[in-house]
Amino acid sequence: MERVACIGASMTQFGQREGEWVRDLLAEAGEACLDDAGVHPDAVEHLYVSNMASGEFEGQTGVPNALAHDLACMPAYTARIDQTSSSGGAGIYAAWQSVASGASDMTMLVGGEKMTHRSTAEATDVIASLTHPVEYKHGVTLPSFAGLTARLYLSTYDAPRESLARVAVKNHQNGVDNPHAQFRKEVDLDTVMESPIVADPLRLYDFCPITDGSAALMFCPESVAKEYTDEYAVVSGIGGATDTHVVHERADPTTMRGVVESSDIAYEMAGLGPEDVDVAELHDMFTILEFLQSEDLGFFEKGEGWKAVDAGKTDRDGELPINTSGGLKSKGHPLGASGVAQAYEIYQQVLGGAGKRQVDADVGLACNVGGFGNCVTTTILERETA
Amino acid sequence: MERVACIGASMTQFGQREGEWVRDLLAEAGEACLDDAGVHPDAVEHLYVSNMASGEFEGQTGVPNALAHDLACMPAYTARIDQTSSSGGAGIYAAWQSVASGASDMTMLVGGEKMTHRSTAEATDVIASLTHPVEYKHGVTLPSFAGLTARLYLSTYDAPRESLARVAVKNHQNGVDNPHAQFRKEVDLDTVMESPIVADPLRLYDFCPITDGSAALMFCPESVAKEYTDEYAVVSGIGGATDTHVVHERADPTTMRGVVESSDIAYEMAGLGPEDVDVAELHDMFTILEFLQSEDLGFFEKGEGWKAVDAGKTDRDGELPINTSGGLKSKGHPLGASGVAQAYEIYQQVLGGAGKRQVDADVGLACNVGGFGNCVTTTILERETA
Repeated sequence: MERVACIGASMTQFGQREGEWVRDLLAEAGEACLDDAGVHPDAVEHLYVSNMASGEFEGQTGVPNALAHDLACMPAYTARIDQTSSSGGAGIYAAWQSVASGASDMTMLVGGEKMTHRSTAEATDVIASLTHPVEYKHGVTLPSFAGLTARLYLSTYDAPRESLARVAVKNHQNGVDNPHAQFRKEVDLDTVMESPIVADPLRLYDFCPITDGSAALMFCPESVAKEYTDEYAVVSGIGGATDTHVVHERADPTTMRGVVESSDIAYEMAGLGPEDVDVAELHDMFTILEFLQSEDLGFFEKGEGWKAVDAGKTDRDGELPINTSGGLKSKGHPLGASGVAQAYEIYQQVLGGAGKRQVDADVGLACNVGGFGNCVTTTILERETA
Repeated sequence: MERVACIGASMTQFGQREGEWVRDLLAEAGEACLDDAGVHPDAVEHLYVSNMASGEFEGQTGVPNALAHDLACMPAYTARIDQTSSSGGAGIYAAWQSVASGASDMTMLVGGEKMTHRSTAEATDVIASLTHPVEYKHGVTLPSFAGLTARLYLSTYDAPRESLARVAVKNHQNGVDNPHAQFRKEVDLDTVMESPIVADPLRLYDFCPITDGSAALMFCPESVAKEYTDEYAVVSGIGGATDTHVVHERADPTTMRGVVESSDIAYEMAGLGPEDVDVAELHDMFTILEFLQSEDLGFFEKGEGWKAVDAGKTDRDGELPINTSGGLKSKGHPLGASGVAQAYEIYQQVLGGAGKRQVDADVGLACNVGGFGNCVTTTILERETA
């Protein structure tokens, strides 16, 4: 079977996009992706939209059809892929499958979400609707899970609270050099450690913001890619997996089984291991999640992710740079866009287009987490030349 | 590339399922499908959920993760596929791609929607949110489009109003023998013709009801199918396509381009034409749509679908039985389930499991329409023996 290539990528400014709606953002990213790939709208055969909740946020559904219309991609087939906060990663998997199955020779994926017109409480409630009804009824939200998990991790692995704060400090540092990031400002350790408590022990700066934004990727068979460009990325590995829907049923809540299982599939498909990864984008919706993923992906031993951050190993100039984009923490987290934007960063890194954020990388990995690890996709991209 | 087989199917009772929620319905259909296919939950690698609007209808998202949990399918990958009223067909396409791409050797698709706890006005409004904002703002709903289109069709092709009513009469006749149908009662021509006007010239009995229900299908590579059964269905053709999102931009609103384009793809893949189809399930959300699809699929000449119905050609004992299940009209239309339930009927027909509804069929076709033809999927199933 022919490999699937990625030949173009785009993302909009992330942040507060007042007066615009999800279809405006999707159209902006989609148009930029067509331009970047040098693909005419007529050539697009499948068009997927990663979006969790345009109906709940805006009262607008049927968004993929609107996008096919706005980009003049008709009669391209289109559908929406929702996997809550990992809708973007699920969209990559859908797009990959559409090409790998032979159903489409040119598939565009556009992920996006418009959230900031709703209050933080309203947006948090829409997101919390993904939890098990029993959890939801008791007032559990994703931030509260994060607080409980952080407390357990810190005590189990004897990690200092400051290590969590260092994730925020690092990702904010990276975000400064990302022109698309919502926050482009450094924060110091004291600022994080003294910010208001949200879900003890986690504080305001341990959380990603609520964000509007969109990102897009163009996929095709490798043989088609060569008609468009001399240098492209190949999806050498991809996998997805679930963990329990009810978080308290997990034997060890500091391990995300979805990350372990999905990366096992992706590594096997790519014929690679964690030691081969040069750069990674992890789903740092909360600082604690970066520790868990960096361990469950096999980058570091269990309980030692915090030591790696403390030692600067995941800094931009470290041995394994993590979240060079600024991560969800400083780049922002427009649900349906986030997984796509992670892959956008990896695409830029392996092809040398990351500007000031550029690191030395041939192989990159993106890990997109839905819910509180309820479903995870892992994608590996590698540079390839025609 | 190996062909994709369907080795199991199920559907719940369609109708008003008071006190149950979409996850209850999905779990019921999913469990029945596992049983029907003889597949252990552990063997399921991908699990797709076709659902348009659980968030809008119930305030519940993350439904695929709930289902993976309830069916004990973890760590199977899961995601939700939404293509409004054709979410079921889009789910079939996603499931097909997952197997054809090699990503999964056993994929279950479960479609469902819980709607009847909301008023007709509320449900109609959720559905209308799929229209273009300009249309929505002017109060356009899908029933009003149907009225306009019916009027145009009747005048363009000099068809009598009674022909539309005969679609309802025929489909209600078929529904009597479908134990899962919402309405199991015959209606006569006068009853349809004298029912209250909803969107002139269409009357109450020209419309499908609002429905709760779920349906499921199990897909795997043909080589795997042979380990489970001696007789199965093969997805010999499948395709999807969009039409304009803004209905008034269509050159001829009596032609559904999405139906034409998606069936072209499906016929070409199957190496078949409309003349080879023995039985079909069409998306009769409104009676007028059955005429349009029967023509745009190539079964009858443009403007002659009504003559075929009048002549009894689409009756159960006619030359091309259409909607032997009772169609959306009498079986009901739980949005995310409908496309899956169409394929359920075709699966039963080609494998001889349709009971009193059984017709002589080796090749069957299902056409699932999203929005007002905004996106359409066409699926062809054929009987195969190991």
